[in-house]
Amino acid sequence: MRDIAVFTGSAHPGLAAEVCRHLEVPLSPARINRFANDCLEVQLEANCRERDVFLIQPLVAPVQEHLVELLMMCDAARGASAGRITVVMPHYSYARSDKKDMPRISLGGRLVADLLVTAGASRVLALTLHSPQVHGFFSVPVDHLHALRELATHFRKLDLSNTTVVSPDLGNAKEAAAFARLLGTRVAAGAKQRFEDDKVSISAVIGDVADRDVIVLDDEIAKGSTVLELLDRLRELGARSVRVACTHGLFASGALKRLSEQPEVLEIVCTNSVPVPEAERTEKLTVLSVAPALAEAVRRIHNGESVSALFDGL
Amino acid sequence: MRDIAVFTGSAHPGLAAEVCRHLEVPLSPARINRFANDCLEVQLEANCRERDVFLIQPLVAPVQEHLVELLMMCDAARGASAGRITVVMPHYSYARSDKKDMPRISLGGRLVADLLVTAGASRVLALTLHSPQVHGFFSVPVDHLHALRELATHFRKLDLSNTTVVSPDLGNAKEAAAFARLLGTRVAAGAKQRFEDDKVSISAVIGDVADRDVIVLDDEIAKGSTVLELLDRLRELGARSVRVACTHGLFASGALKRLSEQPEVLEIVCTNSVPVPEAERTEKLTVLSVAPALAEAVRRIHNGESVSALFDGL
Amino acid sequence: MRDIAVFTGSAHPGLAAEVCRHLEVPLSPARINRFANDCLEVQLEANCRERDVFLIQPLVAPVQEHLVELLMMCDAARGASAGRITVVMPHYSYARSDKKDMPRISLGGRLVADLLVTAGASRVLALTLHSPQVHGFFSVPVDHLHALRELATHFRKLDLSNTTVVSPDLGNAKEAAAFARLLGTRVAAGAKQRFEDDKVSISAVIGDVADRDVIVLDDEIAKGSTVLELLDRLRELGARSVRVACTHGLFASGALKRLSEQPEVLEIVCTNSVPVPEAERTEKLTVLSVAPALAEAVRRIHNGESVSALFDGL
Amino acid sequence: MRDIAVFTGSAHPGLAAEVCRHLEVPLSPARINRFANDCLEVQLEANCRERDVFLIQPLVAPVQEHLVELLMMCDAARGASAGRITVVMPHYSYARSDKKDMPRISLGGRLVADLLVTAGASRVLALTLHSPQVHGFFSVPVDHLHALRELATHFRKLDLSNTTVVSPDLGNAKEAAAFARLLGTRVAAGAKQRFEDDKVSISAVIGDVADRDVIVLDDEIAKGSTVLELLDRLRELGARSVRVACTHGLFASGALKRLSEQPEVLEIVCTNSVPVPEAERTEKLTVLSVAPALAEAVRRIHNGESVSALFDGL
Amino acid sequence: MRDIAVFTGSAHPGLAAEVCRHLEVPLSPARINRFANDCLEVQLEANCRERDVFLIQPLVAPVQEHLVELLMMCDAARGASAGRITVVMPHYSYARSDKKDMPRISLGGRLVADLLVTAGASRVLALTLHSPQVHGFFSVPVDHLHALRELATHFRKLDLSNTTVVSPDLGNAKEAAAFARLLGTRVAAGAKQRFEDDKVSISAVIGDVADRDVIVLDDEIAKGSTVLELLDRLRELGARSVRVACTHGLFASGALKRLSEQPEVLEIVCTNSVPVPEAERTEKLTVLSVAPALAEAVRRIHNGESVSALFDGL
Amino acid sequence: MRDIAVFTGSAHPGLAAEVCRHLEVPLSPARINRFANDCLEVQLEANCRERDVFLIQPLVAPVQEHLVELLMMCDAARGASAGRITVVMPHYSYARSDKKDMPRISLGGRLVADLLVTAGASRVLALTLHSPQVHGFFSVPVDHLHALRELATHFRKLDLSNTTVVSPDLGNAKEAAAFARLLGTRVAAGAKQRFEDDKVSISAVIGDVADRDVIVLDDEIAKGSTVLELLDRLRELGARSVRVACTHGLFASGALKRLSEQPEVLEIVCTNSVPVPEAERTEKLTVLSVAPALAEAVRRIHNGESVSALFDGL
Repeated sequence: MRDIAVFTGSAHPGLAAEVCRHLEVPLSPARINRFANDCLEVQLEANCRERDVFLIQPLVAPVQEHLVELLMMCDAARGASAGRITVVMPHYSYARSDKKDMPRISLGGRLVADLLVTAGASRVLALTLHSPQVHGFFSVPVDHLHALRELATHFRKLDLSNTTVVSPDLGNAKEAAAFARLLGTRVAAGAKQRFEDDKVSISAVIGDVADRDVIVLDDEIAKGSTVLELLDRLRELGARSVRVACTHGLFASGALKRLSEQPEVLEIVCTNSVPVPEAERTEKLTVLSVAPALAEAVRRIHNGESVSALFDGL
Repeated sequence: MRDIAVFTGSAHPGLAAEVCRHLEVPLSPARINRFANDCLEVQLEANCRERDVFLIQPLVAPVQEHLVELLMMCDAARGASAGRITVVMPHYSYARSDKKDMPRISLGGRLVADLLVTAGASRVLALTLHSPQVHGFFSVPVDHLHALRELATHFRKLDLSNTTVVSPDLGNAKEAAAFARLLGTRVAAGAKQRFEDDKVSISAVIGDVADRDVIVLDDEIAKGSTVLELLDRLRELGARSVRVACTHGLFASGALKRLSEQPEVLEIVCTNSVPVPEAERTEKLTVLSVAPALAEAVRRIHNGESVSALFDGL
Repeated sequence: MRDIAVFTGSAHPGLAAEVCRHLEVPLSPARINRFANDCLEVQLEANCRERDVFLIQPLVAPVQEHLVELLMMCDAARGASAGRITVVMPHYSYARSDKKDMPRISLGGRLVADLLVTAGASRVLALTLHSPQVHGFFSVPVDHLHALRELATHFRKLDLSNTTVVSPDLGNAKEAAAFARLLGTRVAAGAKQRFEDDKVSISAVIGDVADRDVIVLDDEIAKGSTVLELLDRLRELGARSVRVACTHGLFASGALKRLSEQPEVLEIVCTNSVPVPEAERTEKLTVLSVAPALAEAVRRIHNGESVSALFDGL
Repeated sequence: MRDIAVFTGSAHPGLAAEVCRHLEVPLSPARINRFANDCLEVQLEANCRERDVFLIQPLVAPVQEHLVELLMMCDAARGASAGRITVVMPHYSYARSDKKDMPRISLGGRLVADLLVTAGASRVLALTLHSPQVHGFFSVPVDHLHALRELATHFRKLDLSNTTVVSPDLGNAKEAAAFARLLGTRVAAGAKQRFEDDKVSISAVIGDVADRDVIVLDDEIAKGSTVLELLDRLRELGARSVRVACTHGLFASGALKRLSEQPEVLEIVCTNSVPVPEAERTEKLTVLSVAPALAEAVRRIHNGESVSALFDGL
Repeated sequence: MRDIAVFTGSAHPGLAAEVCRHLEVPLSPARINRFANDCLEVQLEANCRERDVFLIQPLVAPVQEHLVELLMMCDAARGASAGRITVVMPHYSYARSDKKDMPRISLGGRLVADLLVTAGASRVLALTLHSPQVHGFFSVPVDHLHALRELATHFRKLDLSNTTVVSPDLGNAKEAAAFARLLGTRVAAGAKQRFEDDKVSISAVIGDVADRDVIVLDDEIAKGSTVLELLDRLRELGARSVRVACTHGLFASGALKRLSEQPEVLEIVCTNSVPVPEAERTEKLTVLSVAPALAEAVRRIHNGESVSALFDGL
Repeated sequence: MRDIAVFTGSAHPGLAAEVCRHLEVPLSPARINRFANDCLEVQLEANCRERDVFLIQPLVAPVQEHLVELLMMCDAARGASAGRITVVMPHYSYARSDKKDMPRISLGGRLVADLLVTAGASRVLALTLHSPQVHGFFSVPVDHLHALRELATHFRKLDLSNTTVVSPDLGNAKEAAAFARLLGTRVAAGAKQRFEDDKVSISAVIGDVADRDVIVLDDEIAKGSTVLELLDRLRELGARSVRVACTHGLFASGALKRLSEQPEVLEIVCTNSVPVPEAERTEKLTVLSVAPALAEAVRRIHNGESVSALFDGL
């Protein structure tokens, strides 16, 4: 396999540039041309021939534009004789469409995986997929990173002697427990289950949070309603302070503002897997970079080194 | 094959409804759900099982939204055990991306054809594709209609004794000649070829247009610049009157207004293959319906009758 | 589509026979020939040509034998010109291999789904899959039944005025809640999360079970250790009586005997999705039949009627 | 990728030998065995294992023999563990079957593209395809060369001060214009459109040719009737002299003789993309070699260098 | 499935016409157009839409022409929305290329099977394949007929009390034994094995032929050298008379004349699976028709009846 | 391609270890995990990323366990980003299922070939396939070794001046002849054909064996009944001594003991392509190792050297 060639679409060029700085390779743009009839055309602006091509594009809003752009980047790279095409999706938002809970619905998580392969993707590098089963939707190899090490490095600067990591729901508590181990703290979890038609709901926090410094850990925060409900519970249970941490800080519908307004919330920490507009940022927000981790994974994929070794000790 | 089931996406529900009235079958909606993270989910709101499913969706702006919607409609129909899935695209806008005239560009016309098949499409019903070769981009059967009969019926109401049909470019003059035969008129063609870098350009009108009533016939009008240039030539050559006809009236960037302002233009005729917003319509515009033709084609596809027979005598 | 033809492999001929009685169609055997070199050969012993073929085989022990047998049944039916091949798997045991939680492991849930399609399966009828995401591992349509209606009919014979349905873990509590709605009872859930390396564990029962008649509901019981731990908790919390219900009663390693020995357990209810050997059955065991439900689903699939309608009102 | 291995079928071994001389690699034959029942068998007579295999075969008469031979060469190379298989088709004659202009016809351009991929082709190197859309018929990467540079080098030896390049039809005038730019001359085009049933025909020459030295440029000349008609027009319009140039000199049905007999035709220039039998050659014929260009493209494909860069400055 | 539509290519229209007479359906031609550049185009001259299409074409000389024609017939039928496409190959000559006995050779039997599927074939009806393993080269269902019943009906008119059926080689003796059972005669076999490099050869006739009336049975006779050698052995062993029977009478290189000149040969019997030119026929030749058997198989395939039942009692 | 990585399943780890010693690379195990529900999970216990992975597993009893294990090893290697996956099957037992001699049976030889490709196999290394046509069942490249050289080296230690190699059946006599050439001996063959329903049987030995030292050569010995029958013939014909040689010594149902008990049998020679349990071995048995040959083939595949060259001079 010859040299690396890294391209960015229009979804998150800042992250792509940062990844390239760490890799010490140039970032090549994908020129996006929009015709009068609103159709897109993509031109990759560097030689791809026999190169080890990486296309960096999280599927963030406007998702459909970014998805079609990404499919065209794959197609252009394949047509230009790329040696291998790795789609780097720091956020695979369609992973949430992972089951058929109503009749005759689309299964976006599987469909988009198939579309990427049809368009030419040889492999995928993903970060913190919504559920681990989504891995199995892809018919090409997937490397699945998470951002726990980045988050841990950040929180280790604090006094953690009185800290409990809390997962908002038990289903994802495994990740919270791993995080607690990294930090040497206790772990607890919200136990919450909604049932849409009849509004039956089971809700509790399992584990001791009274008078503790809490770090809430979630994979993504979109509208933030689950975290806000958890904050109500933590307040009732007498938590001393709260910090909120997640990988994907989507912060839709003013979520960041609303969370920042909660007095007991001292800090909100996310990564730059998706772009957070400057205008929406608040004083409480800290954005950690996943660029070094992505760059290291890209380097290992290119060199044929183990990517799972990145997680040793977790 | 069991009963027909027709679904519309959000691109052009009016046309779909009209097709269904002609077919005397109910139109079923595809419920489009947009999540907080901007991802789409489609639910088909009628039983598809073993049905002969038709999904009506032209790829008009916002094209990427409508394309992903259509892919999900295919996926939902397949997952719901549709007996056969025919994608009805009254306008396949990506057909214009049919060649690689620059290095490392995407080939949208072929890519989107492949994506539709991956998503589950069994066949395609298209109307007036930009170039006939696009037919060969699909790996599933394509029925390719045109709207000449509808346009001819409209113009036959006029006195055509002094009329010449003019194609804006020689490449598509075959269709203009077929149209002229239908109307019993003469035919002429603009001969125009642009060469981007050096602006070399060959331009003329071949055939006699002086003092004639001209009908300009094109497949689609987007920004309308080609037609406007042709109008200049026709004016210089002394054409008596001009009517403009096309299948796909996209009318981007105020094209409809600009064309309507040309004094010698008596009428602009297009079909409802794409929606023309009420607000943009002018007094000179006439919109003909392709719904009867689409309905008849759907009926024949369902019944296994010849669709090419629709064109006998052309 | 012409007539139905139903074949059974050697995994569970009794269930297949019962399904056929309900369908009022003959059951045809698949003759399994084992060569001196231990290779298998399958012969379908009835005409398949253009038939709507159903192959009934749960993947129970010996799983590999039954899997290869099933793959060969698909192959034989395809080679014999079956019109359509529906694999009826009342228990898809490989669904538990649905994620990559270690490096370089096989993903059996997806692999076996792909193998079935390669061997010729056109569609799948499954019952109570371990996780709903497994649906997305199949590239062919899946009808996914559950057995809640059968279980509910059984329990409605009891006085349920003091009853609470308990899910052993919150992740699957949705099904328990649906079941409670069917029965008109309360719902509760065990909240349990194990973390293998460091043995961190969160454990509780959310919802009130003191002095209640409990129905524990799980999708499958293999070694039964989760249910046994839950029984400890329920005992501590003062539950009045316990009944245990599940869809797939695998009862490995003496699980059925151990559960039956618990004094507070009044009854253990499972379905015949997998065969329960007569010799292992205890007095407390009740086996409900899913044959009527499978037969009805087969009938609807054959006739092109909605299968999701089977679940209306749940 | 290991060493290059170049094989020739029986269609044009002379060209293949010349390409290999330029590459300084040996040419390996494909032994063609014809059985008593007229079936073919191909044996590649050099090790292909992990080699970068190039199979040189234009699809010239007898086309079906050469096509099946080529498909078998692909199959043999794949079975012999070739690392990559590039089909070098200096003339892809089936490219002319690129549209469905009658009901129920085969679409040879797409079909043959798919057959080549089925037989094992990893990529294609083509020269002057009949229409640029044919590129999109292939599901593997295509490098598309033209021969304008070779033709230009030849004509630059003449005094071109009074020269006009003329395209026989406007549809392909883009190439003529590019050629004129290379030579620094003017450009004109025949404007011709036939309509088979009713013989309606539009015909003219756009651009000034009176008293000019004309170079007629076409992609291929088979029976030559289009060029002969153009010569009539040029004669009427008073052209001073004519030279005829094309890439693919098929010269079927005595076309070369007929063209050579036209007194105003000073020279006929084609390339050796297809073999021109010695016996048919006339004094006016000049055959230029595309072997250096093909060799350079093969070298770049093998080395992973940009092939589009070959055209810089055009 | 709607009506049958039967098409013939140019390989054996007489057989196709006879099949259609037996089926009482019209035979539709496939119009073959050959362009100036020797490329073919096929047009099917009857509506295929949703029809159960049968394409009759044995692969006889010129094999490559007939093969490409057949591939295009498949492609045209698929593009014209055929409901199902059955390729009827009364002689699949490429079946002889069924193994790799030299390095780097093509495997025509498998390759052509794959090409047919790529071109659109849904299934195959074959007659007396050279080896039974060739069945496994197809990824679509194959119905494999033989002509023993036709041959038996012919020979039953003779006094068979002193007759022995002789297979020219032991490998195919199974068919000769089945034939002997049909006729109620004895069976014998030539035992012959050639080893090319060193000319080692094992040769004998196993079974008693002295003073017997011999019927030599082979699957096909091309150059006839194997049968001629067997005749030498039979002569030496004192056979009383010889009749030669085969399914595929290719009779290449004057084989028919040479066999007819053998005095002890009373009759040569073949079927019309391949055309035998009138001019080459001799007085000793009898050609039996397989049209009734092919027609019956087509009828059963269309109606979904068992084709293997055709062979009951063999 | 980067380094070699060799893995063994549980079918024949001894052979795999021996191959690795010859290759001087470490052997990595595939950890096989069996769940409570009898499902398997495979973990490859060494980095596969971009490695040239070889998976060694003959399909010996329990065949279905070993087959599913092998499919999962392929899947795990693919998911772990192996550069290439070569399945090394020293014994492909399903090769015997190579034809459809009954209606509606599975075709195991082709099905298992397709399953391996679906699971991720890029190529196959096989040893002495039951019939050469099985090669054509694979859609990926196959290297097909035999063990004649190993067997010849063994027998050359004897005085071969009076020796005849005897093939038990004429169909496979080609291999016996090649073996005789290697040894410089004569060759003979059993001529045997069974016909199941009516028990018609042709039987003889062609070639002179009276008073000769016979070496019986077969591809595999399972129950050994064919060889035992041949021994009867050889005894009747006065053979002086017998040695029995084969590649695959399966020795089912006590075959080894029964053969060893024949007094005229001096020696039984097989290879270690399949494991022969120590407990079943007799004094007359000699097991030759194919590990050096397999290792050399693996080395050549990895280095891109000709494997057919391994057989030069045969």
